[in-house]
Amino acid sequence: MQQRILGIDPGIARTGMAVVEGSPGSLSLCWAECYETDANQPDSSRLFGIYSRAQKVISEWTPDSVAIEQLFFAKNQTTAMRVAQGRGAVLAAAGATSLPVAEYTPMQVKESIAGWGGAPKPQVTRMVKMLLGPDGIAGEDDLFDACAIAICHHFRSRLATMTSLHGKAAHPSPAGAAQ
Amino acid sequence: MQQRILGIDPGIARTGMAVVEGSPGSLSLCWAECYETDANQPDSSRLFGIYSRAQKVISEWTPDSVAIEQLFFAKNQTTAMRVAQGRGAVLAAAGATSLPVAEYTPMQVKESIAGWGGAPKPQVTRMVKMLLGPDGIAGEDDLFDACAIAICHHFRSRLATMTSLHGKAAHPSPAGAAQ
Repeated sequence: MQQRILGIDPGIARTGMAVVEGSPGSLSLCWAECYETDANQPDSSRLFGIYSRAQKVISEWTPDSVAIEQLFFAKNQTTAMRVAQGRGAVLAAAGATSLPVAEYTPMQVKESIAGWGGAPKPQVTRMVKMLLGPDGIAGEDDLFDACAIAICHHFRSRLATMTSLHGKAAHPSPAGAAQ
Repeated sequence: MQQRILGIDPGIARTGMAVVEGSPGSLSLCWAECYETDANQPDSSRLFGIYSRAQKVISEWTPDSVAIEQLFFAKNQTTAMRVAQGRGAVLAAAGATSLPVAEYTPMQVKESIAGWGGAPKPQVTRMVKMLLGPDGIAGEDDLFDACAIAICHHFRSRLATMTSLHGKAAHPSPAGAAQ
């Protein structure tokens, strides 16, 4: 069954958003954007901008679900909490339409995309290009991260379906399952 | 000059909100609520609930400004980041109407209300009751915290006005300035 996933890499300055469509054996990028906010604006305006943008993308692309990176523990708490605020605005926008939201740790994302939770960034980026096609995406890290989260959700939800159908996964490696 | 302030103590489970009206020598509570979200709902729905409630309160009470507690450093990062998400939803709601948002640390709030940044909670609660009238408020901590933040903003913005008018503050203690 085909599913359309909105992957989001939240932040206060830049929010990566990518709409990925997937079905068994096929995966394609519909749209992606790195939404930037003006650092000269107060946080409230920037957060409302993120909320509004996410809501608009959801209403235009009507995804089946939203995938977002899980809260992480960071050395720099101020940065982490500002990201958490951006995340709050994005989640509120998803909540407006009662869309199911899946959350993944960075390690889960890397594991699903490159087969190893400790995979370095260039390896993950390369795999995103491989999976979505070389012309599909270029630009900032946030875009690749948003795509990676959406792809991770595609693999993981497929895997969950296969597990429930067959008792156990046919292809334990999610990345392998897309080949 | 009279000003109406919406004080907010954000959280994911409970968000304290209080509308306080103040002018030189007068301070009164218009309305207060502890908005609770259902722990059985997904975070996205809870955050949208918080966003919507804050937006409704702003449109009904048309405050001149919003006062909110500043990001804090906590031992429990997971709790802190969930609060930060609630804060993101509240700020996004304030950003929708371009309302000015003032942020204060818990220490600044205590100092403004009770004259000492290390004042214990019961002392702050007692002062909130003293300042708003004993019948004005009862109930959860979150309500008192929301009132305290609004009162803090009232004193601090008055003090700033007085400082700019007279070169320096007539009453350096914000709590004293309200008597």
